[in-house]
Amino acid sequence: MENRQQSCDLILFGVKGDLARRKLLPAIYQLDKAGLLAAGTRVIGVARESASDSEFCASVEQTLKQFVAVEEIDKTTFERFCKRLQYVSLDFSSDQYQALADKLSGFDNTPVYYLATPPSLYAAICKGLEQRALNLEPARVILEKPIGHDLASSKEINQQVGQYFKESQIYRIDHYLGKETVLNLLALRFANSLFSSNWDHNAIDHIQITAAEQVGVEGRWSYYDDAGQLRDMVQNHLLQVLALIAMEPPSRLDADSIREEKLKVLKALRPIDESNSHITTVRGQYSAGFVGSKQVPAYLGEEGAQADSDTETFVALKAQLDNWRWSGVPFYLRTGKRMPEKRSEVVITFKEQPHNIFHETTSKLPANKLIIRLQPDEGVEVQMLNKIPGLGKNMQLKATTLDLSFDETFEKKRIADAYERLLLEAINGNQYLFVHRDEVEHAWRWVDGILDAWQTTEEKPKSYQAGTWGPVAAISLLAHDGRQWDE
Amino acid sequence: MENRQQSCDLILFGVKGDLARRKLLPAIYQLDKAGLLAAGTRVIGVARESASDSEFCASVEQTLKQFVAVEEIDKTTFERFCKRLQYVSLDFSSDQYQALADKLSGFDNTPVYYLATPPSLYAAICKGLEQRALNLEPARVILEKPIGHDLASSKEINQQVGQYFKESQIYRIDHYLGKETVLNLLALRFANSLFSSNWDHNAIDHIQITAAEQVGVEGRWSYYDDAGQLRDMVQNHLLQVLALIAMEPPSRLDADSIREEKLKVLKALRPIDESNSHITTVRGQYSAGFVGSKQVPAYLGEEGAQADSDTETFVALKAQLDNWRWSGVPFYLRTGKRMPEKRSEVVITFKEQPHNIFHETTSKLPANKLIIRLQPDEGVEVQMLNKIPGLGKNMQLKATTLDLSFDETFEKKRIADAYERLLLEAINGNQYLFVHRDEVEHAWRWVDGILDAWQTTEEKPKSYQAGTWGPVAAISLLAHDGRQWDE
Repeated sequence: MENRQQSCDLILFGVKGDLARRKLLPAIYQLDKAGLLAAGTRVIGVARESASDSEFCASVEQTLKQFVAVEEIDKTTFERFCKRLQYVSLDFSSDQYQALADKLSGFDNTPVYYLATPPSLYAAICKGLEQRALNLEPARVILEKPIGHDLASSKEINQQVGQYFKESQIYRIDHYLGKETVLNLLALRFANSLFSSNWDHNAIDHIQITAAEQVGVEGRWSYYDDAGQLRDMVQNHLLQVLALIAMEPPSRLDADSIREEKLKVLKALRPIDESNSHITTVRGQYSAGFVGSKQVPAYLGEEGAQADSDTETFVALKAQLDNWRWSGVPFYLRTGKRMPEKRSEVVITFKEQPHNIFHETTSKLPANKLIIRLQPDEGVEVQMLNKIPGLGKNMQLKATTLDLSFDETFEKKRIADAYERLLLEAINGNQYLFVHRDEVEHAWRWVDGILDAWQTTEEKPKSYQAGTWGPVAAISLLAHDGRQWDE
Repeated sequence: MENRQQSCDLILFGVKGDLARRKLLPAIYQLDKAGLLAAGTRVIGVARESASDSEFCASVEQTLKQFVAVEEIDKTTFERFCKRLQYVSLDFSSDQYQALADKLSGFDNTPVYYLATPPSLYAAICKGLEQRALNLEPARVILEKPIGHDLASSKEINQQVGQYFKESQIYRIDHYLGKETVLNLLALRFANSLFSSNWDHNAIDHIQITAAEQVGVEGRWSYYDDAGQLRDMVQNHLLQVLALIAMEPPSRLDADSIREEKLKVLKALRPIDESNSHITTVRGQYSAGFVGSKQVPAYLGEEGAQADSDTETFVALKAQLDNWRWSGVPFYLRTGKRMPEKRSEVVITFKEQPHNIFHETTSKLPANKLIIRLQPDEGVEVQMLNKIPGLGKNMQLKATTLDLSFDETFEKKRIADAYERLLLEAINGNQYLFVHRDEVEHAWRWVDGILDAWQTTEEKPKSYQAGTWGPVAAISLLAHDGRQWDE
């Protein structure tokens, strides 16, 4: 890869913000360390505060010391990295983009703008760039979620940015798509006949997608309260993972082919409205409780909370796809805050054997399962049954878990953070791991249906104790189908 | 299992012979050590030589010291074992079976006769037993291969034994059926939908069954020369393994259900005759060469050899099943002496992916494989493709081998020898791992076709150098189909 990198300018809007400090700067540093940044590549921080390049460099060093996981900052790398760093002070809403233009002119680096700012600023920034003709191809712009808080507002944002950038220049980030295991899922599905031939309603009983957090709202109460868990997690991360799992095999491994197939899945989602929301959705909001041994307040007891909010901090859904491959195979989605553990995973449960010839020793044969762990430790496992070695007429069976992603040569490797991969893809001008405008809007269309249904039916969130797996209703959702959440 | 054991008398005819000393006595000792023999169970050695029980016990101790693998003989176990041992001196062809009758009378132990003798003696022994009414139910008789050297002679033996014992009393041993991994194959096939749904001509490209030995004829030249590799290995072991792999799922895990399904497979074998033997069979005979670093003589140079023999020491076959499940899926069989290594295994190669979206990094996607190792170290592996962790647009794939039989709790266990399992099943009166008369005869019918074809077409064995994988023609056999042996 190294020599394939294009020399570019990474312009980080909102470089003083949380995202830039926790994720982007450490990721770019790691790319540099791995030799994946071209020699001429620059990193230009943009924020309102005034600072010199050297002050900026010093602050970045502090940031890296704080947020680069485990390891020490590599001195040589940082010296090289520091030389790439430049800073521009800018009021995003102003028309003072000349300073940025000056920085960029005289280099034939491809500008890659990362808008690590609230979406409300996207329009102003794009306009500012356009006034100095900084938006012209091959310039690219990376957008962070949330892209709107419903279909209408997402259309507005996409339309505003679309005024100044073509769709082929726009990179909408969903960091779940940057995870090593999500890519391994593609390899497993499409490189192995054992799975590609078992990937439909004939072979699969149901699919579970869980994204559980232990944390609460972490001081972002009012921001979070405007969104809620459905908007914050389902509309983007969970539906993107669902789309990758459910999509038809793309004819090529490129952005268009993959995004077309994902879009078809989102279009096939059976609408949820007031007629069926009561049997397909569960809303929850946490009450005070214990996460681990730590006592935590109720959602309405968090700092900055308003007593009367009925925003959900947990949601469980039964999603169904009206297409040929997945007819009759439910996708159970579950995500929440203040869960017992931090865990994001996909569990694909295959059909049970139609007949059990081992009933003498095993009254019920557990179904084969494929488990894709996204967090905390990425990995892919398959569960199947084996004979326990030993004598005797009766076959003693045992469910064995195999780590498919295991490989002694793999183990040594550090798993790259999602943002490293996604930044690299953006630098390389490859959109296949980024979300197309149509995907965002179709995901919102489906989510809006649920939000409307909750409103019409006045569905208030059910209370669940912090540190539990959500309201009892979430268990009933599957129990009603004779199934249960994989624990 | 322990308390399920029936108390019985194991009567070993030919107790001084190779089989009894190398395999049977060590196996019975291990069963005793594992607590799998009922308290009242006795082991009665029968041979022509006269000896006292105590002399017999002493000789058994020597035998165990010589042939019990790895471990030391356990003192306590042997003391208990020795008390079980009794000896009867007997001329098998005589009518002096009263001595044996006396030994057995006064106990209500089920007699289990193990005929570890040449088949030529089966008739005499059965007759002798019958004269003292020792053949009556619940008595059982265990027969060793070879059961005949062609269909006619096997029918004769089966008919002779059948005069005195019902089929339900007769246990024909094929020690391949006693292997742990062969049973695990049943668990894998019938307990896991991932495999049961992929077990036919839609999912599988072809199947290879290899049984390779490093040894030559080991001083048994004239015995071996009468048989040859086709009779010695294919008619029994390889066809039994083929039948287990290819059979339809039995409705129950019992002897009748399984043996019926195996029989259907043997009946579905497409006949090989002079019209197709030239494209479906390869005969070989080893010339002088090196196995490992050891120089070895040609087959015709072995001790006791006759210069003019054209017996085959290697055979490769393309077997085809004319049924619905396996139409168009060749089973390639290969077995020989003086091969580069001792290896018995089944390799199931699944179909290749119809389309490769990873061609940028992997021009050809290797097919998934299921590998069942029977020798030297038993195990089950599956080969599939995984993404190599790392950044970059191109998906780097890697074939990873997973040990399906792996389990930390398994590892500690000592894998029981096939004879231990088979003796225990015979003691328990369970025939599901023993070969039915009809199976033996249908296997011979198919093998006779090949032998006749070789005779009619005057197909002489092709020479191959000792220490190689057989004549070049064996490679061409697969190359002609665009395939190759798994090495």
